[in-house]
Amino acid sequence: MEKVKSKFDTFRQNTNIIIYGTNTVAGRLFDLVLLAVIVFSVILVMLETVKEIDVKYHKELILLEWIITIFFTIEYILRIISIRKPLIYIFSFYGIIDLLAVVPMYFSLFFVGTSVLSILRSVRLLRLFKILRHPTFSNQSIHLKEALIASKGKIIIFIYFMMVSSVIIGSIMYVVEGDQGGFTSIPISIYWTIVTLTTVGYGDISPITPLGQSIASLVMIMGYGIIAVPTGIVSAEFASFRNKKATADKINPCPNCGVEGHEYNAKFCYNCGEKL
Amino acid sequence: MEKVKSKFDTFRQNTNIIIYGTNTVAGRLFDLVLLAVIVFSVILVMLETVKEIDVKYHKELILLEWIITIFFTIEYILRIISIRKPLIYIFSFYGIIDLLAVVPMYFSLFFVGTSVLSILRSVRLLRLFKILRHPTFSNQSIHLKEALIASKGKIIIFIYFMMVSSVIIGSIMYVVEGDQGGFTSIPISIYWTIVTLTTVGYGDISPITPLGQSIASLVMIMGYGIIAVPTGIVSAEFASFRNKKATADKINPCPNCGVEGHEYNAKFCYNCGEKL
Amino acid sequence: MEKVKSKFDTFRQNTNIIIYGTNTVAGRLFDLVLLAVIVFSVILVMLETVKEIDVKYHKELILLEWIITIFFTIEYILRIISIRKPLIYIFSFYGIIDLLAVVPMYFSLFFVGTSVLSILRSVRLLRLFKILRHPTFSNQSIHLKEALIASKGKIIIFIYFMMVSSVIIGSIMYVVEGDQGGFTSIPISIYWTIVTLTTVGYGDISPITPLGQSIASLVMIMGYGIIAVPTGIVSAEFASFRNKKATADKINPCPNCGVEGHEYNAKFCYNCGEKL
Amino acid sequence: MEKVKSKFDTFRQNTNIIIYGTNTVAGRLFDLVLLAVIVFSVILVMLETVKEIDVKYHKELILLEWIITIFFTIEYILRIISIRKPLIYIFSFYGIIDLLAVVPMYFSLFFVGTSVLSILRSVRLLRLFKILRHPTFSNQSIHLKEALIASKGKIIIFIYFMMVSSVIIGSIMYVVEGDQGGFTSIPISIYWTIVTLTTVGYGDISPITPLGQSIASLVMIMGYGIIAVPTGIVSAEFASFRNKKATADKINPCPNCGVEGHEYNAKFCYNCGEKL
Repeated sequence: MEKVKSKFDTFRQNTNIIIYGTNTVAGRLFDLVLLAVIVFSVILVMLETVKEIDVKYHKELILLEWIITIFFTIEYILRIISIRKPLIYIFSFYGIIDLLAVVPMYFSLFFVGTSVLSILRSVRLLRLFKILRHPTFSNQSIHLKEALIASKGKIIIFIYFMMVSSVIIGSIMYVVEGDQGGFTSIPISIYWTIVTLTTVGYGDISPITPLGQSIASLVMIMGYGIIAVPTGIVSAEFASFRNKKATADKINPCPNCGVEGHEYNAKFCYNCGEKL
Repeated sequence: MEKVKSKFDTFRQNTNIIIYGTNTVAGRLFDLVLLAVIVFSVILVMLETVKEIDVKYHKELILLEWIITIFFTIEYILRIISIRKPLIYIFSFYGIIDLLAVVPMYFSLFFVGTSVLSILRSVRLLRLFKILRHPTFSNQSIHLKEALIASKGKIIIFIYFMMVSSVIIGSIMYVVEGDQGGFTSIPISIYWTIVTLTTVGYGDISPITPLGQSIASLVMIMGYGIIAVPTGIVSAEFASFRNKKATADKINPCPNCGVEGHEYNAKFCYNCGEKL
Repeated sequence: MEKVKSKFDTFRQNTNIIIYGTNTVAGRLFDLVLLAVIVFSVILVMLETVKEIDVKYHKELILLEWIITIFFTIEYILRIISIRKPLIYIFSFYGIIDLLAVVPMYFSLFFVGTSVLSILRSVRLLRLFKILRHPTFSNQSIHLKEALIASKGKIIIFIYFMMVSSVIIGSIMYVVEGDQGGFTSIPISIYWTIVTLTTVGYGDISPITPLGQSIASLVMIMGYGIIAVPTGIVSAEFASFRNKKATADKINPCPNCGVEGHEYNAKFCYNCGEKL
Repeated sequence: MEKVKSKFDTFRQNTNIIIYGTNTVAGRLFDLVLLAVIVFSVILVMLETVKEIDVKYHKELILLEWIITIFFTIEYILRIISIRKPLIYIFSFYGIIDLLAVVPMYFSLFFVGTSVLSILRSVRLLRLFKILRHPTFSNQSIHLKEALIASKGKIIIFIYFMMVSSVIIGSIMYVVEGDQGGFTSIPISIYWTIVTLTTVGYGDISPITPLGQSIASLVMIMGYGIIAVPTGIVSAEFASFRNKKATADKINPCPNCGVEGHEYNAKFCYNCGEKL
């Protein structure tokens, strides 16, 4: 009995290392296989929604769907078994996503039409961001993240300003344009304002009265101009980050006179001539 | 009598502190409640314009509308009573907006269709910007404001250039395209030019002659390229602002006169000549 | 005779000062009046092209049109008379524009439909850029111009790259999409490519085959991404310009030890303590 | 026999210098002529696809087409003959392109409709980028290339993020909108997401349910905002590049060892300790 327990423990430990770890060859291989299967499963769901393909290859698609579902089910069970505190995993974001990725297929055995929920599986693609922790990218992605975090405050103000502006402009356009041109309600007008401010411009709704077109022109120029604000914020943040790194590279104080700011390849202090 | 007067005075003072102040708990709470009611009232006006909702819940919406109107009326009266110089408030921007937010509902008792003007209330959303004075954001929003003010001159030139270009390009397109494709008048052509220059591109009007499409291509490339100008201006302003702040961080105060901001390698105070 | 000549000379000289000069009150006033009349004349041409307005006020518009034409004619004659070398003015860019602004109306007396050419007058709006020479803006506009000139080389390469890419992508899309979706010829496909690359996106032509939509997606992401290139170029140019100015403000050498880089408000050298 | 061989060798050598070299007048002239013929041939293919022109001038176009094909064939043969290792050229990218540019016309003698493949010839336009190696532009284009290479890592992460987001958002929109508004399958929804995220906005597909429009609004704001990321990356890269150059300009060489790049206030060489 003891032996069985310990054997199971060894199995759990090994599984844990393979599934959660990234330091062993097996662990890295598992990650790669898992990512490949996730990508494949998402492509599968995509193809199922294309009518022409679904009509022709319905059976094959369903078969593959079941294979993937069983693969994901086994993975889910192994994840629960091998972790020390299964409840933390089960109720974590990824735990719920992993469950939602398999449940719809089993449901579809009893209820018609629920297989469409397999699309939830595409959220598993988020696991692909794990790749950013790879040494090739980790520096770059940390850099990106820090710059975005540093500009968070200004970006919140900016989005806040955009939202309030959208509501006000949307209300004005609703009064000005009326039902003509598609401004049938304020929410629709606000939707139009965002479409215009962001320079997307579908054209499903567009002003037709001269006054409406004049206001629309102002909104467009405003949208065209204020893109400069988030861009400027993030650019400055990136540039400052680069400078900081450049400065940090240069501190390097002189042991004799203490003057700092020597180039990384300096051999002598530029102030007192002391050897560095 | 004296006592009543003084009692009223105390009431006025307290009301003033609550309504206009932000230093007491009651004052902050009032601000939050007011902002919530404003947001709610705007959502209400929005829903009223959506036909399906209005048909179903017309009575409920009108009831809520009156509750909010009465709330805003009381607020308006309290604002007038509690301030020392009521006329300054009444004729201030916010004073007029606050009045316009309640008047339409009372008018709607006598005139049909004026309740649509309640939309003016959405301008009260501007009060939401008060939140930017909150310590979490105030630094950031000052920063944003300063950068925008510093680039004001260049941005005016830029908008001026855009407007003159739009008129000239619009006139040319009117001659080139004629009535085909929707270029029915020069103002419409100018509207199209702005839609194109800002890369919005509704597609409600689009050139159909080869020459018109060629000119349109040039306008698009121009619009695509010159977005770089406002972006560059604002980016440079933000970056320069950041650098200035970085310099200010090198505080290093003088022991004699207390002046700060000496370079890291300064030996003497630049203000009093004292040795550092 | 001599006296008449000299009287005419004085008139010429005064006229020259008023028309071409900007140093006297009369000269500045003339500029302002001229700009106002130009703006008014352009608005007039605009209104004439709006059918509803033209039908109602045809006579009034024609009358105003003639008043402006005569005003511009007198201005044109005065410009020729008062300048020392009239031919240089007549064949200069502005000289030709000034002539083209009046000729169409006189032509319309003999030929029907030529009054539409009055639109050429809108090119006179370019004179509005004269305002940029005003002290309030001159620094800013010089700054803008220098930054754009400095990035000229890179921007030419960029536009060159865009054009070659457009031709290649346009050709590919023509083959892929065929006549479906509006890709009826390569020039039209190139037009579509520019509409897409610049993120304008009218939607008058849009791909409908899966392959075409995939290529279109790549083109969009490319267009979305490479906007960063001109923006980056101009931003860097602006930023470098600002830095140069900041550095120039700081040279300020010490008379004793010659160390440079003192702040503009420094009273003592930070290196030797000498009074500046 | 020997003499003939050597004559042929001389011919080969001269041809090589003219075709592949750019140092002789003849070599430069050949490049210019070739580029002109390529541009002309591409314009020719373009015109052939415009029905109105093709109907009118079919014979003339075909004639010109054959002249160009023969010119390109001779060029292709000369390139093979004159190079030392013909196979390397034949299987190089440009070698294949050069072959594909002439083959379709010969095929069209035997198979109907293959002349449309002449469009492949437009890929020869890539040779136009050779102009970037010209001294006027080479510095600028190297600068551009280096900045883009330096930001490569971050841009890959960015595109990766965009792609994963597009799949997830596309799947959500498919579920939310259903067949209404054109979201007929997930691939189409992803196409719509890219059209929206990049702010192109054709409007061929656009959401019509309130929930769909709300999500679309978020996607637009996201797309509008994250353009700041690539722009910021490239701007910072350009700016840093400029600064590096500015630093290199502070040459200030050491009289002893000749090392350059000393700070303006350096007293001793950072390399050999010599007094400056």
